[in-house]
Amino acid sequence: MNDDFSPEEKNGFYKAVFSRRDVRSHFTSEPIDEKVLSRILNAAHHAPSVGFSQPWNFILIKDKDTRKKVKESFDKERIRSSNLIDDPKRSKYLSLRLEGILDSAVNVCVTYDPSKFGPFVIGRSSIPETGIYSVCCAIQNLWLAARTEEIGVGWVSILSNDELKKILEIPEHVVPVAYLCLGHVTKFAEKPDLETAGWLSRLDLKDVVYYEKWNSSDDPQWRQIHEMIVSNLDYA
Amino acid sequence: MNDDFSPEEKNGFYKAVFSRRDVRSHFTSEPIDEKVLSRILNAAHHAPSVGFSQPWNFILIKDKDTRKKVKESFDKERIRSSNLIDDPKRSKYLSLRLEGILDSAVNVCVTYDPSKFGPFVIGRSSIPETGIYSVCCAIQNLWLAARTEEIGVGWVSILSNDELKKILEIPEHVVPVAYLCLGHVTKFAEKPDLETAGWLSRLDLKDVVYYEKWNSSDDPQWRQIHEMIVSNLDYA
Repeated sequence: MNDDFSPEEKNGFYKAVFSRRDVRSHFTSEPIDEKVLSRILNAAHHAPSVGFSQPWNFILIKDKDTRKKVKESFDKERIRSSNLIDDPKRSKYLSLRLEGILDSAVNVCVTYDPSKFGPFVIGRSSIPETGIYSVCCAIQNLWLAARTEEIGVGWVSILSNDELKKILEIPEHVVPVAYLCLGHVTKFAEKPDLETAGWLSRLDLKDVVYYEKWNSSDDPQWRQIHEMIVSNLDYA
Repeated sequence: MNDDFSPEEKNGFYKAVFSRRDVRSHFTSEPIDEKVLSRILNAAHHAPSVGFSQPWNFILIKDKDTRKKVKESFDKERIRSSNLIDDPKRSKYLSLRLEGILDSAVNVCVTYDPSKFGPFVIGRSSIPETGIYSVCCAIQNLWLAARTEEIGVGWVSILSNDELKKILEIPEHVVPVAYLCLGHVTKFAEKPDLETAGWLSRLDLKDVVYYEKWNSSDDPQWRQIHEMIVSNLDYA
């Protein structure tokens, strides 16, 4: 094969994966260069999609009034969510910084349009959700591309999609999948904010890998890889 | 910032994005090195997840009997889907190679477990689907990592999830999100198979980007990036 990856190229990919963060607190007001933003969007557009349906759209938002309305929806949903838990967890939740809607340079709403190239999309008949899964793959491409360009991304999921559809004039049949904040940052945190805050810990790889069937961590065919994952050393 | 990406590192990331393919036809029987597979899984495990919930599991499958059962589900669903369309589209659909379940070295079923760290997960109360979206981000990490390791991945979405849950003993509350085939390949195709087959074309980037609200392609604040995207040249 003539398109092997050099060690540095491969390293670049893994560096993006391991240093990508969900950014909320470290945005600066510096604008994003148009070429950079175009490259990031182009990477998103080159995600896989079921039946090559490319069912995504990207709504770029700078307007302050629009963002203020989105922020209001966040504020309402944040309070509503906090009422689902009791103190001390509730107070801790309310102390966390969870969005950068107004601080970031650009907001991007990523949507799913099931009518694109439809109604028959190859591979979408048995599991219709694969359409929306494709949009998520595009979001992850965007996120990683942004990281290589030193642009931070934060996904705001504490929002009312009904409100969002009204604010952005999104038609009934289209689903808002993600509301993202993009911008330059003062730094990328070493670890996820929720890990640093002691909210949750990162699971070990061995805890998320099964062999041959659900919940099976012991299979003779997989002993070598299992030992490697448990030792957490040799594969890095 | 001390963790900028070198041009070659950045290039490595974009190379993975643009040369990643949904592989069905070009698998070889060569086994995947355990270190390589561990690195790919570790990249998947470092995806973003709502509230740091890490709700994914990866079931690794080599067993031929298991795979044959999955292939049977594919065969049934393929015929069922084909009956949704008429000739000549139906014949074309049936002529396409859409899976590599038995040819690939390893199958991986990626699942979503909403009960992990639950029931309250930060950021999942307003839009519960964000849990499953996190799993899709992990899948895209896996797919790109595989590409940098010269491993092909094919996503089989023509399957019955009910059958899959029975075959892999997946409990009621867990959702199979993707069934992936991984293996070495004779080549990565230049373009998506469905594009080469003339089934659908790739959309232009300008057709998927809107400004400030749905369906708006003209906004004074965004004129510069719009011209760049339309000319399709300057940002690459």
